[in-house]
Amino acid sequence: MPTYTAPTKDSQFVLHEVLGVSGQDIPGYDDLETDFTAAVLEEAGKIAAEVLAPLNRVGDTEGCRLENGVVRTPTGFREALGQMREGGWPGIDMPEEFGGQNMPNVMYTATGEYFSAANQAFMMYQGLTHGAASAILAHGTEDQKATYLPNMISCEWTGTMNLTEPHCGTDLGLMRTKAEPQDDGSYRITGQKIFISAGEHDMAENIIHLVLAKIPGGPEGIKGVSLFIVPKFMVKDDGSLGDRNGVSCGALEEKMGIHGNATCVMNYDGATGYLLGQEHKGMRAMFTMMNEARLSVGMQGLAQADVAYQNALTYARERLQGRDVTGAKNPDGPADPLIVHPDIRRSLMDQKSFAEGARAFMLWSAMLIDRAHRNGDADADGLVSLMTPVLKGFLTDQGFDMTVKAQQVYGGHGYIEEHGMSQFARDARITQIYEGANGVQALDLVGRKLAQDGGKHVMAFFELVKSFIKENESDEALKAGFLDPLKAASKDLQAAGMFFMQEGMKNPNAALAGSYDFMHLFGHVCLGLMWAKMAKAARAALDGGTADKAFYEAKLATGRYYMARQLPMTATHLARIQSGAEPVMTLDAAGF
Amino acid sequence: MPTYTAPTKDSQFVLHEVLGVSGQDIPGYDDLETDFTAAVLEEAGKIAAEVLAPLNRVGDTEGCRLENGVVRTPTGFREALGQMREGGWPGIDMPEEFGGQNMPNVMYTATGEYFSAANQAFMMYQGLTHGAASAILAHGTEDQKATYLPNMISCEWTGTMNLTEPHCGTDLGLMRTKAEPQDDGSYRITGQKIFISAGEHDMAENIIHLVLAKIPGGPEGIKGVSLFIVPKFMVKDDGSLGDRNGVSCGALEEKMGIHGNATCVMNYDGATGYLLGQEHKGMRAMFTMMNEARLSVGMQGLAQADVAYQNALTYARERLQGRDVTGAKNPDGPADPLIVHPDIRRSLMDQKSFAEGARAFMLWSAMLIDRAHRNGDADADGLVSLMTPVLKGFLTDQGFDMTVKAQQVYGGHGYIEEHGMSQFARDARITQIYEGANGVQALDLVGRKLAQDGGKHVMAFFELVKSFIKENESDEALKAGFLDPLKAASKDLQAAGMFFMQEGMKNPNAALAGSYDFMHLFGHVCLGLMWAKMAKAARAALDGGTADKAFYEAKLATGRYYMARQLPMTATHLARIQSGAEPVMTLDAAGF
Repeated sequence: MPTYTAPTKDSQFVLHEVLGVSGQDIPGYDDLETDFTAAVLEEAGKIAAEVLAPLNRVGDTEGCRLENGVVRTPTGFREALGQMREGGWPGIDMPEEFGGQNMPNVMYTATGEYFSAANQAFMMYQGLTHGAASAILAHGTEDQKATYLPNMISCEWTGTMNLTEPHCGTDLGLMRTKAEPQDDGSYRITGQKIFISAGEHDMAENIIHLVLAKIPGGPEGIKGVSLFIVPKFMVKDDGSLGDRNGVSCGALEEKMGIHGNATCVMNYDGATGYLLGQEHKGMRAMFTMMNEARLSVGMQGLAQADVAYQNALTYARERLQGRDVTGAKNPDGPADPLIVHPDIRRSLMDQKSFAEGARAFMLWSAMLIDRAHRNGDADADGLVSLMTPVLKGFLTDQGFDMTVKAQQVYGGHGYIEEHGMSQFARDARITQIYEGANGVQALDLVGRKLAQDGGKHVMAFFELVKSFIKENESDEALKAGFLDPLKAASKDLQAAGMFFMQEGMKNPNAALAGSYDFMHLFGHVCLGLMWAKMAKAARAALDGGTADKAFYEAKLATGRYYMARQLPMTATHLARIQSGAEPVMTLDAAGF
Repeated sequence: MPTYTAPTKDSQFVLHEVLGVSGQDIPGYDDLETDFTAAVLEEAGKIAAEVLAPLNRVGDTEGCRLENGVVRTPTGFREALGQMREGGWPGIDMPEEFGGQNMPNVMYTATGEYFSAANQAFMMYQGLTHGAASAILAHGTEDQKATYLPNMISCEWTGTMNLTEPHCGTDLGLMRTKAEPQDDGSYRITGQKIFISAGEHDMAENIIHLVLAKIPGGPEGIKGVSLFIVPKFMVKDDGSLGDRNGVSCGALEEKMGIHGNATCVMNYDGATGYLLGQEHKGMRAMFTMMNEARLSVGMQGLAQADVAYQNALTYARERLQGRDVTGAKNPDGPADPLIVHPDIRRSLMDQKSFAEGARAFMLWSAMLIDRAHRNGDADADGLVSLMTPVLKGFLTDQGFDMTVKAQQVYGGHGYIEEHGMSQFARDARITQIYEGANGVQALDLVGRKLAQDGGKHVMAFFELVKSFIKENESDEALKAGFLDPLKAASKDLQAAGMFFMQEGMKNPNAALAGSYDFMHLFGHVCLGLMWAKMAKAARAALDGGTADKAFYEAKLATGRYYMARQLPMTATHLARIQSGAEPVMTLDAAGF
């Protein structure tokens, strides 16, 4: 049975020593004193470890069942959601006026990692509710906010997002679900949506579906798509629940993983819906939800990698197999623990250096989101917009690879379901697919985000790396181990950007053929930057005579590992990118 | 429902145009005329596509059930094995004297790929039987051969290999199963073995277990391990079956994949066993089986990647989603097929260039095995011994990654079980683990094989690459697209070997820390060499005015893709290797 311990110490290190949150000039951040964040993180870690983690395998083995239109969730899920509600976790960063706690996004992100690590399938019910509430908060009328938000923010009601149809996933312009205007201002929604996470279940009194549909007579394609609020039960004027709406779950999907989450085929049979935002501007409203979801999915990639790593580390310390080639480390035992073997360490260091780097990257990005939202900082907003596909695509690809590496540490015991390592890999696999498959993230990055606002945000990123290097290069140890490799990797990224500018003008395929490699190249540079920042903080603590030398020295060693063994990937990504369109585009479709 | 088409044309291309099998001076190869191999491959492809492939999902969804000590295999498996027996496939390369067809290993490998691609879980029953028969053939007495081989070669009886125990996988010296000598020359076998594929089932009259155990009083550790034949039913002198032996299946494992294969806990309760080979030399005898199994597992990596690729390609051609950025390719339809998008093509080309390169690598290696066995060529034997961990480790790691890429092409439809793409990934995952986890393969390669016979075999490999380049560099097109990148990759491999020699002397961990990267670096150079050979053959066909220009031009384009976009990985592997032991070894076990 796998276990989970929330990495509160590491989160605290990032929040305070790397990001210096309480000294940031962002509304609400002055509350984020060390003791306060420690208390919040400890409490979140406790519920993650004690309530959610023990239900993770239960969810996987029991799965969800559809019985006469009702979806039964796994044993214990309902009670666990009750505990989450009592703790106020679902609305931690939501406005107080609707029952939230109004903490910054950085705290939602820090605690959300723990919950996702402990039980991804469970957390999706809550995460989608949060996303739907955010969309209503951003685009709803005052009446809509008052009607839906208090119950969604408390998670008494949950939410969903309905985009995909059988014949259209990424290409939503092909959508067929229609929304016919009614005399009372509502719409009749008819159509079928698939892959709807948490579409139906027995854990909440009501489910608020956000549904993309086309109003007949509107513009063709994606420009004719609008967003609607479709409650499972109609909400009366006094807030009580009325009749069942014309929406139902037609089937549950059998999936590779996240069995604890109900993935539903949703049938809308003339269901009553209410326009959210403007007519035909549905994608804009949905993107509020999607961008948030994409960051959450990036976080899931980190989260699964971290919990899988924790268990692989325990196994590597306990399982006795073979001898250290330089001399027995456990001479009185029948064999040495796995962790003496260099190749096991390589795998564990890959995992550890990823998880810690990714955690810093997520929290740094969350702080940018707070700066964008709370300070109205358009530059921060632009930078996060640029980073969103990297956070989603890179962290989930790497996150999945790391869960697979963790599973591998267990040998044959990783392949059987008993130890839970297979589940981590199977659950992590979805993160590369949902909320925009990673190839679509790469397209978004190279086809749209790079050139956004005249390329201003990517330039700002380069400037940020450059100035960090410049400010710190007088520190010789930092320079050799961290800044020099970061500089080299950043140069590769710039060369790739230059290649796209020059070649992409002539042939857009020359840029698109390299988009996936560019997303990974960018991700490595981001993690390299995070490691350089963390190394600086660790050196400061050591110079200051910290009592916890081991923690900071391990941080430096882990960072050096990342710079020496992961960052060199940027050169290969650049070489692939510079091979251009020809290798990718030569064959015609029949020639494959 | 996924489909499978055996790539007979590509196998023929490799056999005849790349390897020139019928002109090789190897006993039995003069039979391998084009028409003959074509007929064999077509027939194998037919049974793979029509009999085995349709049972692949059946095996995954039904799995195996243990009922009162009897293991029930999935519907149709028993009948399918009957058809395989009728076709004589299980003994295709076995001696005629025991009922085999005496074809070379290269034909066993070529056809085995198809069977594995169509149904890996099913083929394991037969593959393990083949391995056990090979061990008896190599190490058995005349009496043992006569008693067991005819029924095993026909697959009336199946075989297993029993190594792992709950507390020992890789480190077999810790083994506890004991074999007590009896007065009649037999042994009483007592102990528990786990992860025994095909350990018990309802498809054969008898099961012949090969079991590693320790004879009390023998040497400590791995040097005291012997190998035993333990039949499920005792075989009487007249060949008929007698009493049930003291061996039984205690439980089946729940696994991530290969559900159609019964993975058994086997209990030996004073079972009667017969020594195979010499006392205390069990590992030597077992290695006959393990080496064969490792090559088969490498082939499984290729096979799963190929079948997954075939289905991803079909989906990419049929699924309409989005538009070609350079202009609609399907203007009359609602959208263009996925295959117009550069990033989808990148993924498909990764898969295609791997599968074709891996197929050539497997068949080339199989020819070396034939040269080793049929010509008694010690150099060929040494080269295959060197290559075995590369074939196993590299082809399965890459094979798994490619099934994941193929699954990704399906988007959300890849994550649900309906389309079968999840199964390919779940099944492929075991190949990285069983028959020696890939980290152990890397250790075998760097810790043992590199230095074998004074490093003679790795030198021979470098010489082989060098002389191929030299012989062909007057062909300008071949030089630029193939030979130059191959030369650069080969230099990286040599530099890595040099680093190991220099640093590994001082500190073995400096070599072992880079062992995994070395295995992959080596694998890329091997596939680079294969692509250079295939490009040469394709150019020869084009120069000769072939009527099938499209095939050879696609071959060249696919090869150029591999050289331009995959081979550059060697530089990153080298950079990691050259970072040495320090990044990997710095933290102590508590410091992680």
